[in-house]
Amino acid sequence: MSESWPTSGVDLHLELDPATGRRTGLEQALRAAIQAGRLAPRARLPATRRLAAELGLSRGTVKAAYDQLVAEGYLTARQGSGTVVAGLPGRQAGDPHGPSGPVDVQPRHDLRPGRPDPSAFPTAAWLRSARRALGAASADAYTYGDPRGRIELRTALAGYLGRTRGVLASPDQIVITNGYVQALALLTRVLGESAPAVIATEDPGVAFHREVIRHHGSQVVPIPVDDRGARTDLLGGPGFPRVGAVELTPAHQYPTGRTLDPERRRALVDWARSGDRLVIENDYDGEFRYDRQPIGAIQGTAPDHVAYVGTVSKTLGPALRLGWIVAPRHLLRPLAEAKRHHDHHTESLGQLALADFIARHAYDRHIRACRLRYKRRRDLLLARLRSRSRPPSGLAVHGIAAGLHALIGLPSGGPTEQDVLDAAAARDVALGRLGDRWHEPGDRPQGVIVGFGTPNEHAYPAALDALTRVLDACGP
Amino acid sequence: MSESWPTSGVDLHLELDPATGRRTGLEQALRAAIQAGRLAPRARLPATRRLAAELGLSRGTVKAAYDQLVAEGYLTARQGSGTVVAGLPGRQAGDPHGPSGPVDVQPRHDLRPGRPDPSAFPTAAWLRSARRALGAASADAYTYGDPRGRIELRTALAGYLGRTRGVLASPDQIVITNGYVQALALLTRVLGESAPAVIATEDPGVAFHREVIRHHGSQVVPIPVDDRGARTDLLGGPGFPRVGAVELTPAHQYPTGRTLDPERRRALVDWARSGDRLVIENDYDGEFRYDRQPIGAIQGTAPDHVAYVGTVSKTLGPALRLGWIVAPRHLLRPLAEAKRHHDHHTESLGQLALADFIARHAYDRHIRACRLRYKRRRDLLLARLRSRSRPPSGLAVHGIAAGLHALIGLPSGGPTEQDVLDAAAARDVALGRLGDRWHEPGDRPQGVIVGFGTPNEHAYPAALDALTRVLDACGP
Repeated sequence: MSESWPTSGVDLHLELDPATGRRTGLEQALRAAIQAGRLAPRARLPATRRLAAELGLSRGTVKAAYDQLVAEGYLTARQGSGTVVAGLPGRQAGDPHGPSGPVDVQPRHDLRPGRPDPSAFPTAAWLRSARRALGAASADAYTYGDPRGRIELRTALAGYLGRTRGVLASPDQIVITNGYVQALALLTRVLGESAPAVIATEDPGVAFHREVIRHHGSQVVPIPVDDRGARTDLLGGPGFPRVGAVELTPAHQYPTGRTLDPERRRALVDWARSGDRLVIENDYDGEFRYDRQPIGAIQGTAPDHVAYVGTVSKTLGPALRLGWIVAPRHLLRPLAEAKRHHDHHTESLGQLALADFIARHAYDRHIRACRLRYKRRRDLLLARLRSRSRPPSGLAVHGIAAGLHALIGLPSGGPTEQDVLDAAAARDVALGRLGDRWHEPGDRPQGVIVGFGTPNEHAYPAALDALTRVLDACGP
Repeated sequence: MSESWPTSGVDLHLELDPATGRRTGLEQALRAAIQAGRLAPRARLPATRRLAAELGLSRGTVKAAYDQLVAEGYLTARQGSGTVVAGLPGRQAGDPHGPSGPVDVQPRHDLRPGRPDPSAFPTAAWLRSARRALGAASADAYTYGDPRGRIELRTALAGYLGRTRGVLASPDQIVITNGYVQALALLTRVLGESAPAVIATEDPGVAFHREVIRHHGSQVVPIPVDDRGARTDLLGGPGFPRVGAVELTPAHQYPTGRTLDPERRRALVDWARSGDRLVIENDYDGEFRYDRQPIGAIQGTAPDHVAYVGTVSKTLGPALRLGWIVAPRHLLRPLAEAKRHHDHHTESLGQLALADFIARHAYDRHIRACRLRYKRRRDLLLARLRSRSRPPSGLAVHGIAAGLHALIGLPSGGPTEQDVLDAAAARDVALGRLGDRWHEPGDRPQGVIVGFGTPNEHAYPAALDALTRVLDACGP
């Protein structure tokens, strides 16, 4: 029978790794040969005795390896015809290009908005907090926890948000999320529990957040923005669609940088109170206000009608994926249930580290240091833009009282967004495009968004030089 | 006019914290007084000049504080009638009991299934990995990243899963998730993209996973389990509902502990291949097999039809919320998009730490140590159950070749689940109930599930003693 064996240990190039056990090594080698197609479907394997002799293994070892692979479905043991390779689907080699995913090619001068300077991350202090928090954590910190998040962090946040943002929260009213996107996803789910909700979002605003709302089953309608912020005076009016919630950025409108006017705040709260309606207050960069103290959160004036959302994405960085919702009481149970069905709860170690970081005022110190850093950068940006004598003239800089970005409005008759972005691309400068922020394309004001938080400290002056050259190049 | 002032600084009990600035302090005090209701809606505030004199502040400071609170909506400035407190909704004190949320009262003897021993968490080694990983990380580790997760972790996992579980994966085929629940949520979303999907899950199985599937818009049907594992032979048969996917635990069925029989594996894969169908392979404790080596993953034999899901929840603990999907190529783009719309991506620092932990073989070492620990516990449990001479007799112990739990079947005619659980509750012993795992209640086999991984090492013998007393107490 030996001449009918189509394969042998040698033919198979079975390379047994001496580090693994003999049986395990043989199994891995056979599995790899089958997966790679070197052993084709229906190929017969050598009898156990023969392969054992060829490889210097015991017959029992080979038999055990075959049995294992039969159990896993790689091989089939047929009465009378020995062991054969099972039918497997065609294999292809790994695709080195991967699926879609935003391919994040790093530009030379990164002035994209929405990202803080990664080099500002307080690595040593953070690791100290993580070590302390883990050392002090009880056993329940290592297992499944409350879907709202760790009580240590919710307690620290309740104090911090009350003190710095005027948020009225007890720890049991806070739900920890994986950053803003998940907070918006959970709120959308809860609002649309019985029927799809309609949520108004700012126009211009963040396009991705509109996508997130739609992905989670609700509709989006625009609420226009003017120089006093979102037009909340339109809510409930005859021409405005009926909406159950408004998502907006009152402290520092994104991307125009306006602060919501007191009258508009009042109109918003009145509208929310006059029905079963919700304000989603996106306080994405409320910590960074340069020329006066921060505007307190609307939530403090209407806690039963506002879901306040904050994150560490602009202070410590988006990579931590840590955010929080301070929710009206009637939404707490559904929010906790939605969170549980999304991912049980946010991972605990980062939460414990942040709780320690806040409680020891390392968070305050970090924010103060960042505020100084970003204020200097803003001042440098303004000085540079003002000192330009070259075209395009008439540039208007908006929204620079706070935050990590400026909107440069391009006057009509001058260069368009596309002109500036083309000039920027030619110099490997990345900027944000105002045009991407409108709900609908059309004949809109033109502008580009400069994220002055993004470059690291030593790269910032060169980035400003490059920006200046971009603007100079757009002249006639 | 002074006599008409209804409030004064003294009446308000404004306690200015000397640590904050004067203006900030005044604002905080006013905000707190309004929030607490000490300053009622429509109450008129003292004129700036008067309050300044009373508090020993400059008039400009008081004016600035009033302006700030007008901007925030706490106060209203009325022409001719000074500054009044704005109308605010009724306030209630914080509810100390919080919303729903699973209240996790710690039992004295915790033998609930599904949780590893928290004291086994390798804190020092994990922190070393975190420190090394952060030290080596590039700037992009601190900002928004690929929705599939960090390439460092996906690369480490591709090697690890191929070596230990026979999973066929390149790094670009892996999507990092926040544990199993999110993996199942994302797969459900993707399967139900165009129309609600129907997914078969094991009966008995994990009730919460059925809820997760329904929460994300798909339907669930049962696939029965017998002593050869899930009845995959029924799939596609005349009596079985048409389903687009099967979610199951082939290496160690939960909770019966069966390994899916080779014939059943083949039937499953044949069924998946014969149509556009998906197997969701939940490999929740594939690392822990005691009496023979682990059964390799089905994914290795049918990578185009299996979404393999694993986590660190049983090895390092559920608190880390780290899991992975190895997905067929055609699902990668929709999975990455779903992940992005759920929470952008899983937080990066834990991913980087785990990548380092795997790459340095600390993960292998940890799992080997845990395997020994849990094998010892299983042996102790079996010895204890076998040595019992008291009723109930006829107990059958299932599923103890692997994993962190055993199913104790209760013979008919003897005590019921409820009898055992009542006896356990009386002794503060927490066990799992088989009855909770069925799709539909009814006249089902009775059993309790013992999670022998949950107690910490020194608490385990006492937990076994308590379990013995519970079983003894259930006799006639």
